[in-house]
This record gives sequence, C-alpha cells and structure tokens, in this order.
Amino acid sequence: MKEITQNFQVQFSYKVIFTNKLFDISNSTFVNYFDNQEQAAKNFIIIDKGMYAHHPDLIDSIEKYFFFNKEKIQLLGKPLIIEGGEAAKNNPSYLEDILKATDELSIDRHSYITAIGGGALLDLVGFAAAIAHRGIRHIRIPTTVLAQNDSGVGVKNGINAFGKKNYLGAFVPPVAVFNDDHFLKTLNDRDWRAGISEAVKVALIKDELFFREIQRDAEKLSSRDSDCMKSLIFRCAQLHMEHIAGNDPFEMGSSRPLDFGHWAAHKIEQLSQYELRHGEAVAIGIALDVTYSYLKGNIAKETYEKITALLKNLGFKLYHHTLSVINQQGELTIIKGLQEFQEHLGGKLTIMLLEKIGKGIEVHEMDYELIKKSVKSLESLYTPV
Amino acid sequence: MKEITQNFQVQFSYKVIFTNKLFDISNSTFVNYFDNQEQAAKNFIIIDKGMYAHHPDLIDSIEKYFFFNKEKIQLLGKPLIIEGGEAAKNNPSYLEDILKATDELSIDRHSYITAIGGGALLDLVGFAAAIAHRGIRHIRIPTTVLAQNDSGVGVKNGINAFGKKNYLGAFVPPVAVFNDDHFLKTLNDRDWRAGISEAVKVALIKDELFFREIQRDAEKLSSRDSDCMKSLIFRCAQLHMEHIAGNDPFEMGSSRPLDFGHWAAHKIEQLSQYELRHGEAVAIGIALDVTYSYLKGNIAKETYEKITALLKNLGFKLYHHTLSVINQQGELTIIKGLQEFQEHLGGKLTIMLLEKIGKGIEVHEMDYELIKKSVKSLESLYTPV
Repeated sequence: MKEITQNFQVQFSYKVIFTNKLFDISNSTFVNYFDNQEQAAKNFIIIDKGMYAHHPDLIDSIEKYFFFNKEKIQLLGKPLIIEGGEAAKNNPSYLEDILKATDELSIDRHSYITAIGGGALLDLVGFAAAIAHRGIRHIRIPTTVLAQNDSGVGVKNGINAFGKKNYLGAFVPPVAVFNDDHFLKTLNDRDWRAGISEAVKVALIKDELFFREIQRDAEKLSSRDSDCMKSLIFRCAQLHMEHIAGNDPFEMGSSRPLDFGHWAAHKIEQLSQYELRHGEAVAIGIALDVTYSYLKGNIAKETYEKITALLKNLGFKLYHHTLSVINQQGELTIIKGLQEFQEHLGGKLTIMLLEKIGKGIEVHEMDYELIKKSVKSLESLYTPV
Repeated sequence: MKEITQNFQVQFSYKVIFTNKLFDISNSTFVNYFDNQEQAAKNFIIIDKGMYAHHPDLIDSIEKYFFFNKEKIQLLGKPLIIEGGEAAKNNPSYLEDILKATDELSIDRHSYITAIGGGALLDLVGFAAAIAHRGIRHIRIPTTVLAQNDSGVGVKNGINAFGKKNYLGAFVPPVAVFNDDHFLKTLNDRDWRAGISEAVKVALIKDELFFREIQRDAEKLSSRDSDCMKSLIFRCAQLHMEHIAGNDPFEMGSSRPLDFGHWAAHKIEQLSQYELRHGEAVAIGIALDVTYSYLKGNIAKETYEKITALLKNLGFKLYHHTLSVINQQGELTIIKGLQEFQEHLGGKLTIMLLEKIGKGIEVHEMDYELIKKSVKSLESLYTPV
C-alpha cells in the first residue's frame, strides 16, 4: 500500500499589551505595533454598540489618531458599529454584515480587522476575520473585564447556532491584543463584576496564591478599585495564556480543564435567554461544582465554605432559578448541559472538579442525584431575595 | 508598559493513502485507520451527487462495510448526497444543510465527517467540518484526478461568496485522505483530463524530471492509461504536499508559488460561469503565463513551444473566449483577476512565472500590454474550431 505522510508545524505568536487610552494622540502603543510594515497598514474597525454609548467620542478619537499617524496606519471605511453582548453571537445577520463589508472594502489578508468591545463582539468579529479570504489578521481591543482577562486573550472565536453556544467557530489566534483599562471605568457594576469569576476559576484550578490574593482584595474589587482590578486581569490573562500554550491550544484532545464550572454555566446562560452574563453564570457554575465536590467528599467543608464565601464577598449571586428547571422527563434540564458539553468537546465526558484550592482534577462521570442535591443546597442557601 | 507574549506551535499530521475499492469488504484500509479508537468511530458521510450517479451501489457498499466492521466504525445517519462541482461552493444552502445535519446527528469533535467526491464538494464539506464545534475531524475521499493530486490532499477548504472564488474558507488539514483509483475509471473524459494540468503546473515550477515523465506519458495519459495516471497522481500529490509542509502552510506570508497559472484561471473560470472546469482553466492560465514569460524574454522559444505542445498533446484547449472579454473601460476583464488575486492573498502582488522548466520565479508586477499580446497570441494560435 502506497502512502504519503504529511507532517508540519505552524507557529503562532502574539502579544497582549496593557495600556491606557489607546487612541490618545500621545499614546504610541497601537501605532508602534505596525512599525515593520512596508505600507500604511489598513485597519477595518468594528465597535461594540453598548460600549460605544459610554464612549461617544471614540470614533472621533480613532479618526484623529489614524490621521495623525497616517504614514503607518490607514482606516478602511467608516468604523462599523454592531450590537454587543450575546445578541452579536445569536443573530447571523451580523456575521453577514461584517463579511459583506470586508468584500466591499476589498480587504486583503494582510489588512487588519480590529474589534473593540466585549467578549461576544470579539468572538463574532474574530470568526468573520477567520473565514474571510481564509483568514484576515485580527486585532482585539477587549473592553470588559471578562474579555480582557479571558475570552479576548485566547485563541477561540465563534457564534451561536441551533440554540447552542459557540456552535460555529474556529481556533485562530489574534495577531495582537490591546488591553486598555480606560474602558473598564465606564462598565456598569454587573459587567465590572462578572469577569472576576473567571479569575476565581483559574485560581481555583491553577494557582492557590492567586486565590489568596483575590480573597485579600475581594472588598476592593467589589468596590471598583482600579489597581486591584488591573493586577487581577494581568494575572488571570497570564494563567489563561500559559494554559493555552502548554496544553493542546486547538483542543484536538479531550481535556479542557479551563472550563471548570462551565458545563452548567453555558446551559443556565442559555436557559436564562442570556439575561445572565457569562461571568455571572460561571460564578453559579463554580458554586455548583464546588458544592458537588464537597458533597462527593472530594474537598473539605472548610474549602467549600472558603470558596462560596469569596464568591459572595465579590458580590456574586450563587443561585439562579434556571438551575432548577425540570424537563418533560422530570429531570433537571441542566443535566442536558453535560451532554452538550461532551458533544462540543467530543470524546469521553471530561469534567474538571476540584482536588483542592489551586488544583483541579478531571472526572469522567457525574452523579445526577448529587447534582440535584447540590442544586437544592444552593437553592436553600442562596435564593436571591 | 506591561505585556504578555504568547508563543506556541501546533503540530498537524495526516496520511494520504492510495488504495483500490475502498469499501470492498475485503479491503481493510479504511477501517484500519480507526485502530486506536476506544469506541466505534462515528462517521457522517457526504457524497457527491455527480459521482454517485456513476456508482449507484456506493451507499449499499458503505452500509455493508460499516456493518461488517461495526466494532470499529459506525455510520451516523444516512449518507447525505449533495450536488458536486462548483454548484456545491456557489450555493450557500448546501453549507447550511451540512451544518444542520451535524447538529441533528449530535456530531461531536471526535466524530468524523467523511466526504466522497470531487474537489468542490470536498472544499465545501471541509469548510463545514472546520467550523462546526470549531472543528470536527474530516476525512477526504477524493474521486477526481484534480482532487486526488492537488486540492484534496492539501490544507485548504472553502466556498465562493460575493462572486469570488473561495472567499470564505479556512486552513484546516484533514485527518486522513484515501485516494481510491477505482473512482477514476468512471470519470468522463473532461474530468479525467482536467486534473493533469495541475501536474504540469507543479512539474514546471518544481521538478523538471517530472515534466519529462509527463511528456513521455502524454499520449497514454490522454488515452486513459490507468497506471500512468496513478504514477502522475502520486508524484503530483507528493510535490504539492512537500511544498505545503516546507513553505508557510497557512499562507501567512505573501508567497504562494503553487498558484502558477492561477490568477487568470480563477478569473476565466468565473467569467465562464464555471462552464470551464478548474483544471481546464488552469491549462489555459499556464499557457497564458508561459506565453507571457516567452514574450517578456524570460524563457526561450523552445521552452515555450515544449510546454504548449505538451498541453496540446494532453488534449487541453489553450484558448477560451473569456480571455478576451473587455470591460467598460476597454480593458481586458481578466486583468481584474490580478487585483482579486492580490486581495485574496494580501500584501504585494506576487505572481509566479517561469525561469525555466522545473523552476519558477516570482515577480511583483505584470505588464498589461504584454498580457494583451499574450492573449492575442493564444487567440490566433489556439481558437477552438
């Protein structure tokens, strides 16, 4: 039997750069990125409508910034404003709008599609950039805590389809990420807080010291202390990126330990019709899996209490009525989330639980009765008043 | 300024396996691929309608084959039959049909989407597999010469959009390719011949010895000698794969030397409304660029004559009326193909021409008057009667 074996590696590299007021004329961080280009780098900019409402001068600043630096960077057309939040990922017409714009602007593969906004908008734009011309360079400027410390600094993009989160998407890293903390100031309290849950998550499974730092800073974080938030975002982004680089970045295998607390989170987000923010759902998902780990006998009562107390101190609600929704077979609907999680990932069911603070452990089955008990426990302790 | 640098490599690996009658019960090539799976590997199969017309027993054979090997492989649903040829890539509803099926069949990332057909169908299915769940494993069973020696063994997929070829797509390698020469027997003469032009192309820019072999075998190839075709396909696939592995597989840079003859080919394919096969258009594109190279003084008259004579002997037409279509500005419409080629690729215009047989040379501009002259020359010498 004749055969030809193909074998190659592809190298991916990008930086996450922390800055303040990226499009101030005096800030050269953005334009310096394009230092080695032969011609002015073409940028097509897409802006999150929700964020834009708080930054009405943004387009003006961007235009001035590009004009001031016109030898190195060039705007392609007018910035496009698109609905942010989960709507960006649920409505397929936004994807079409972006693709149509790339065609009309004659964007080529060496141009840049730059997205400014929350994680959902970045996911949408990243997907469009991944598939137009088989890949246009994509720059991310995340404007929420969650996007700056997690979703915006990684290698995934996607949109929702068939009622399933991220059903369509790709693994394609951005070419650069600019984390501008100026955008955090105008976040409402929910969006400020929501992203902190991803930091708790990664601390719990990777870094006990970081967990203790979050404990120490919980009150300040909750009362919107900028410096504490900057450190939290930096360390959280770093842990996520280290994990990605060290562990199957394009998820070809079965393991996906960064998704601690996420199997239930995705499902209740969807059941709440995205009234819950992703980060809020993750906090509940963590509370559920921590309760489960405790009831299962994997972690001590003290550990379980420490974690739920931290989430409470950070201002998270730890129960949502969608956890208790029952399907026609009389089962908890969130259990379906386990199956969807497995389908999305493929292979054996693999769920990350806790061994102790700072160390996760993978399991391949979950006890449905114990999930029910965990939900009941959260309901009795944490039903919002 | 704080920053985090991300750096990682992703390893890709797959085999192109040559076989005969892949789904004969006695042939274990296909099932052996799944040897290391823990459970029976789920396969969702998509079949090219045009090819299926010549192999009406195929679904029956596949079902028997899967049943016979049911401990190792499992069919997901009924095989889906989809229009082949460029229609597969032009009609966006086919992409939707496939994605919908992946959802309905609860396909996960460790399942397989296996496509059997010509290059266009493989491109469509490969794209669907690339974006569902951010990537489902994809197996290709190319059934035409062109798909077996070029498009089906590489890392690209895609569909057409906004009137442009491959406007949407991704770089995602298959996990395996099975080249079954039994499918070649039922090709009509046009499809048998069309794929030979890609072998001529890669020989011209990479391998003089291979060019001489094609010269030697031209008559046999033209009269459908199976053994000659098998060698041609093997060597051509090998040269393409070596090139991909050794040169920027995901085309992040500007160079794309495998596209010799393709800038004009893509445009006349589109202008003919895909009445021309891709391989037929490539033969004309090669003839054009070889004529241009000769008129420009880059190659000797003898070389130019040798190449055009070979294309003729292989049975290719070297002129098509779409080459001479004039736009409203009185210019050759194919010139627009240069611009579209550059947009798709990005960066500087980079066109591969010939230095000599077996060696290409990249240029960054083309002389429009000389293109016109080359078209005139082809028209006067090769207008089909």
